[in-house]
Amino acid sequence: MSIEQTPPNRDNTPDNDVVEDRISDDRISDDIDRIHALCEILEPSFEQIEAGVPIEDESLRDKFTELTVLLAELHPADVAAVLESLPPRERNIVWLLVAPEDDGEVLLEVSDSVREMLIESMDKDELLAAVDDLDADELAELADDLPHQVVYEALQTRDEEEREQVKAAMSYEDNQVGAIMDFELVSIRADVTCEVVLRYLRRFDSLPDHTDKIFVVDENDVLQGVLPIRKLLVADPEDMVADVMATEVVRFRPEDDVEEAAQAFERYDLVTAPVVDENKKLIGRITIDEMVDVIREESEADMLNMAGLQEEEDLFAPVWDSVKNRWMWLAINLCTAFIASRVIGAFEGSIEKIVALAALMPIVAGIGGNSGNQTITMIVRAMAMGQMTGTQAGRLLKKEVGVALVNGIIWGTVMGVISWLLYGNIGIGLVMVAAMTLNLLLAATVGVLIPVMMDKAGRDPALGSSVLITAVTDSGGFLIFLGLATIFLL
Amino acid sequence: MSIEQTPPNRDNTPDNDVVEDRISDDRISDDIDRIHALCEILEPSFEQIEAGVPIEDESLRDKFTELTVLLAELHPADVAAVLESLPPRERNIVWLLVAPEDDGEVLLEVSDSVREMLIESMDKDELLAAVDDLDADELAELADDLPHQVVYEALQTRDEEEREQVKAAMSYEDNQVGAIMDFELVSIRADVTCEVVLRYLRRFDSLPDHTDKIFVVDENDVLQGVLPIRKLLVADPEDMVADVMATEVVRFRPEDDVEEAAQAFERYDLVTAPVVDENKKLIGRITIDEMVDVIREESEADMLNMAGLQEEEDLFAPVWDSVKNRWMWLAINLCTAFIASRVIGAFEGSIEKIVALAALMPIVAGIGGNSGNQTITMIVRAMAMGQMTGTQAGRLLKKEVGVALVNGIIWGTVMGVISWLLYGNIGIGLVMVAAMTLNLLLAATVGVLIPVMMDKAGRDPALGSSVLITAVTDSGGFLIFLGLATIFLL
Repeated sequence: MSIEQTPPNRDNTPDNDVVEDRISDDRISDDIDRIHALCEILEPSFEQIEAGVPIEDESLRDKFTELTVLLAELHPADVAAVLESLPPRERNIVWLLVAPEDDGEVLLEVSDSVREMLIESMDKDELLAAVDDLDADELAELADDLPHQVVYEALQTRDEEEREQVKAAMSYEDNQVGAIMDFELVSIRADVTCEVVLRYLRRFDSLPDHTDKIFVVDENDVLQGVLPIRKLLVADPEDMVADVMATEVVRFRPEDDVEEAAQAFERYDLVTAPVVDENKKLIGRITIDEMVDVIREESEADMLNMAGLQEEEDLFAPVWDSVKNRWMWLAINLCTAFIASRVIGAFEGSIEKIVALAALMPIVAGIGGNSGNQTITMIVRAMAMGQMTGTQAGRLLKKEVGVALVNGIIWGTVMGVISWLLYGNIGIGLVMVAAMTLNLLLAATVGVLIPVMMDKAGRDPALGSSVLITAVTDSGGFLIFLGLATIFLL
Repeated sequence: MSIEQTPPNRDNTPDNDVVEDRISDDRISDDIDRIHALCEILEPSFEQIEAGVPIEDESLRDKFTELTVLLAELHPADVAAVLESLPPRERNIVWLLVAPEDDGEVLLEVSDSVREMLIESMDKDELLAAVDDLDADELAELADDLPHQVVYEALQTRDEEEREQVKAAMSYEDNQVGAIMDFELVSIRADVTCEVVLRYLRRFDSLPDHTDKIFVVDENDVLQGVLPIRKLLVADPEDMVADVMATEVVRFRPEDDVEEAAQAFERYDLVTAPVVDENKKLIGRITIDEMVDVIREESEADMLNMAGLQEEEDLFAPVWDSVKNRWMWLAINLCTAFIASRVIGAFEGSIEKIVALAALMPIVAGIGGNSGNQTITMIVRAMAMGQMTGTQAGRLLKKEVGVALVNGIIWGTVMGVISWLLYGNIGIGLVMVAAMTLNLLLAATVGVLIPVMMDKAGRDPALGSSVLITAVTDSGGFLIFLGLATIFLL
């Protein structure tokens, strides 16, 4: 029976129960509104506040005090949200007022871009003080953004074991379990009674966060099983751990993908799970709070990518930073739009003769893009949930083509009749029906094939699929519509 | 000290630790591939299997046995994923083979459309058996999809208290905390020692899932505080609960929005939290596993909406169901495309004279839509995180206009030069620069204003924003470009 790695320590562990005095969400959002208002009033006095000069104006001084009090009551996670929502100068005022002992927690919570900015505003001693309270895995998380000198000095104050842990955590990619695993855990041997375990636990000042199970290991730290606290509490004190523990556990390797780990947590309703090395030796654990962050970040990344933003953008980033974050997708979009433009250019002769074509062609392209995105979203989602295997693609293609055919005939006919009435030319109406149906069929086919091929090529099917399909349905739609019109109407 | 509401019961509580023998994710996905393959082989024998006629062909019989064994090993959550990924007949084969005692759990896990289909395939006795093991809150979740007669008879087998719980849970909307709260919890009084609590807990057969804290109530069940298990385990057995418990807790009302509750869980790293009525009387609790589902569903709903799907669609839904799920967005898209088409129609005279305009106009519209979606995504995200207050909108508008101006000048110039070279007409080039810049400015302005106005009007800013902005930048882009060209080039 041993304390695994870092001994739990009251100062070190953020105490979950202090958190619990943030009661109603309503109050929090009122506080945040008030903080925004106060920051705006104090913004002109930024230089004075930064220089530490006392504020002379009494009403301003009151505001300053009120702001200090409000911030002191906020949880670090709420402070992080406030910091993200403020423009640079006001952000600095708030950051100056955050209690130094919360600095580390806040830095862990804010987005990457805001974190960089906050770290830049701090000197070495402030940074060292901020990271002093952090666990090894948390220090590792910040290390990439900290000046080398700070990381070096912060490591000097830790013992050999913790230094190894920080180094180990830093050696994994951001999307690997090893990068987010936690070294603070409680482990015991299988050959003791539950009574002994309870007595052993009582010797701790506090247990690591989210402790819902105790890890059972042998003398070489090889994982034997887990003892859920729920079982420990109802077990007969005389029962041996070996008889109460669960021997088959969902466990992870540090090289595992965090998104897969998050899916396992979600599917099996886990709160914590052990991380073991290739010899099944227990090296850490992962917890549900990290997994919730993974799920949130994953879905946000998908959404940002769908909207054409490369990464989470600081709300008040300088204009130039925003331009850089957005230029790539704009450039790709311009390239595909240019190709579509050249397709139209090839039919300038036809458009000169029937100018109505120019007005109708965006309708054909638009419905194809819309419908193709519907198909691709279905397929990407099925892939993410592991529901696409060998023969599924063929069957889904059949179904999507069927849907496209029905939609094409319905909406094609609607627009065909409208075009006929509008331009008094039944030929134009018929070309609309045919072009819309064909473009929807193209959209359905490409909407299934693009993600399947990207997946086969080892690429993330979510990323860029939407741009690609819009490119195909735009250029394809113009080509089909103008081509049919040239053949049948001229 | 009392057991709150439903007494915990070994049969009733799905045992988390049985779950834990699903080890590696890799093995699961191999199993699922194999199940897909077996289902395809067995599909032609569907009628026989459904009728319960023994399969004569020996090799088929072996396959059938293999499928049965594979399914028996899967966790209900995995069975649900398999069911969602199969076409109707194969889905029915799998459903016939699922152990009756897992039926209820599986029904809770599958998507709405698949759930409806599975329930349709079952007779009354099968349904009654399936829901028999479920908790009150789980029965309430299924009740909407079950035939009335089944709900009625299922309620008859429960005691008065449970019937009240089911009715209570059903009285809340799907997006309210009351609809997902759990009635199974452990509560104690404040005036006992930790030793007494430990002895009390030992009298349970098992504790409710995710029990990370015990709720402390007075004689009227009014919540006094919570006793985290982490604290109970390290406390001196002689300590009074009143001295160890946390008195200020994050608590929810059954009317609260589940998404806000999920944000609180995420922010404060909660595992469970109490639900109280207006008199602070403890009526239930919510758990992190439900919150993870909320976060996942919320982000999926956003993604489906962005792609123009009304709701989660059964992968193998009949063509007609898919058409119904998708028609609304296609219709909206067609309307906006039609408006854009009429804008172009108004300039047919200009296009007849300079046919190059027809080829260039989609570029102007396209970049506006792309950039507008970038802006709107930033704003919607900031709103979702509660970072938008009164004056923020004005400042963000200023920033977004700045970004649009820079992008307009850069990309406008690029495309302007290309158009000039392509058509040998510097006028066309200059109109491109001006039109692209103006459309980007329009996109930025509308990209900030649309979500702000939708929020003020009490609408969900995420829903439909993307369609709306594309409509504005398409019609606006055509109008600006063709308008400028008509004024300056003709």
